[in-house]
This record gives sequence, C-alpha cells and structure tokens, in this order.
Amino acid sequence: MSAGASPCVLCQIVCGELHVDLVVDTERIAGFVVRREAYSRGHCVFFPKRHTSSLHDVDDLDLAELLPAIKTVAAALEVTSYNVLQSNGALAGQTVFHAHVHLIPKTQAADGLCRDNQPSPGIDQTGIAERLRARLAR
Amino acid sequence: MSAGASPCVLCQIVCGELHVDLVVDTERIAGFVVRREAYSRGHCVFFPKRHTSSLHDVDDLDLAELLPAIKTVAAALEVTSYNVLQSNGALAGQTVFHAHVHLIPKTQAADGLCRDNQPSPGIDQTGIAERLRARLAR
Repeated sequence: MSAGASPCVLCQIVCGELHVDLVVDTERIAGFVVRREAYSRGHCVFFPKRHTSSLHDVDDLDLAELLPAIKTVAAALEVTSYNVLQSNGALAGQTVFHAHVHLIPKTQAADGLCRDNQPSPGIDQTGIAERLRARLAR
Repeated sequence: MSAGASPCVLCQIVCGELHVDLVVDTERIAGFVVRREAYSRGHCVFFPKRHTSSLHDVDDLDLAELLPAIKTVAAALEVTSYNVLQSNGALAGQTVFHAHVHLIPKTQAADGLCRDNQPSPGIDQTGIAERLRARLAR
C-alpha cells in the first residue's frame, strides 16, 4: 500500500505508514504508547491488526490476546490504579473507528479516565436476562 | 462454604450463595445482568471465577475468555453503541475488589458511561516506550 493510502490511522500503523512507539507487536495485535492526547502518563492503546470498527466484529482469537497483553504492559508500567476502556460508536465516545482498547493509568483524581456516573435507579432490567439467555442458547 | 461466609459478592455468586441473572457461565468465567445500580439498560458484568482483585493478577486463560464473551453478549443484546470498562484500584473507581469487566450500552448522552475527559497536553510520555520495551524484553 502506498504512503497515505489508508484512511485509518491504526491500519497505517500496521502497514508501517505511521510510526508509533510500539510496545506489543504480535501476528494478531499491536499496542503502543499514546503520544498525542494522552489521558495520563503511561496511557497505551491496543488493537487487533485486522480492521474492524467495533468489538463485536473482532475475531475471537484477536480478542483473546488483548487483555493478556494489557496485563503484561500494566505490570511493566508498575501501575496498580488504572482503567481499561473500549468504546464502540460515536455516542459512546469512539473517535477512531478501528476497534481498540485503552490502558489508562490513574495517579490522581484529575488525570486518567474521569467519570461522572450515577447509577440510574429507573432502569428496568426485567426481561433482559431471559431474552439474553434465550438468544445465547441458539 | 457456608452461606454468607465469603465477603466477596462475586465469589458469593460463584459459590451459589448469591443469585444473579447469569448469562455466561463457563469453567473459568461468569457474566450477569446488573440489576442494582445499572448504568443503562443491558448493563452486564463479567468476571473470572477465581478471586483476584485486579486485572494484572488474573490468569491469562481467564482473561482470554472475557472479551469474546462480552462480544457474544453485545451481539445478543443487539447493541452497537457501548463501552467496555474495567477498573483497578479505588482511585480508578473500583468498588468491588474482585476483578471484573463492565459491558455498558449507551443509547443516549445521559445514560451509560458518562465521561468528562480532556486530553492532558502536558503529559510527557518521552522515555515510557523505551523503558516499557526494555522491561517487556526481559
């Protein structure tokens, strides 16, 4: 592929068109240290090399490698306080539409992943479990 | 183990002391529909059955099962907009100290995972990649 031919920045990394600080590089997945727009010191991103936009489209064997790789890098970073975040869809905050997973260390309240969540008491989960089990049993 | 003997709610689920709406139940991992304090409709939690507090302590074979299981449940929920979140340490928002992963559908800005993040331009990632690679090569 010629330089600049891929519109996807993660595919550009795979093709060697874009240079990043790779810390994981297997046949299936890659991981790198985020330089631009890092949420905290040590912020890394991991992704399957095969392009798909969302987690539910990623090959199971690719998915199986991601969390063990993140575990290894978290240990090497010597962080014990961190979030692992994966986002699907613009509404959920996805901005790069090649499925990927963030490892975001958190050393103080103001850095890393900042959440503003309150559980929603009005959510009715009744019936969800039954429908899920029926679908999963197919 | 006698009823109420485990202080860990996820271990209580594994032991059958606590009943939840299980949707995944393998030798290694389980997943259930969150009833109390759900962030959105379809919010589920997945966890390795063996008790460890943080992702970096979880067995690789357990970790390998989690994202494929979440993919399967996301497809069964028919959600395309969702976050996968895993938190380690109280500072990072962990409140149940048995490693677990959330699948949080997001159907509107106000439900699901709500983030308030701005990339921190002042973070210096210089040197992190080199140190990581050196450690990972050991």
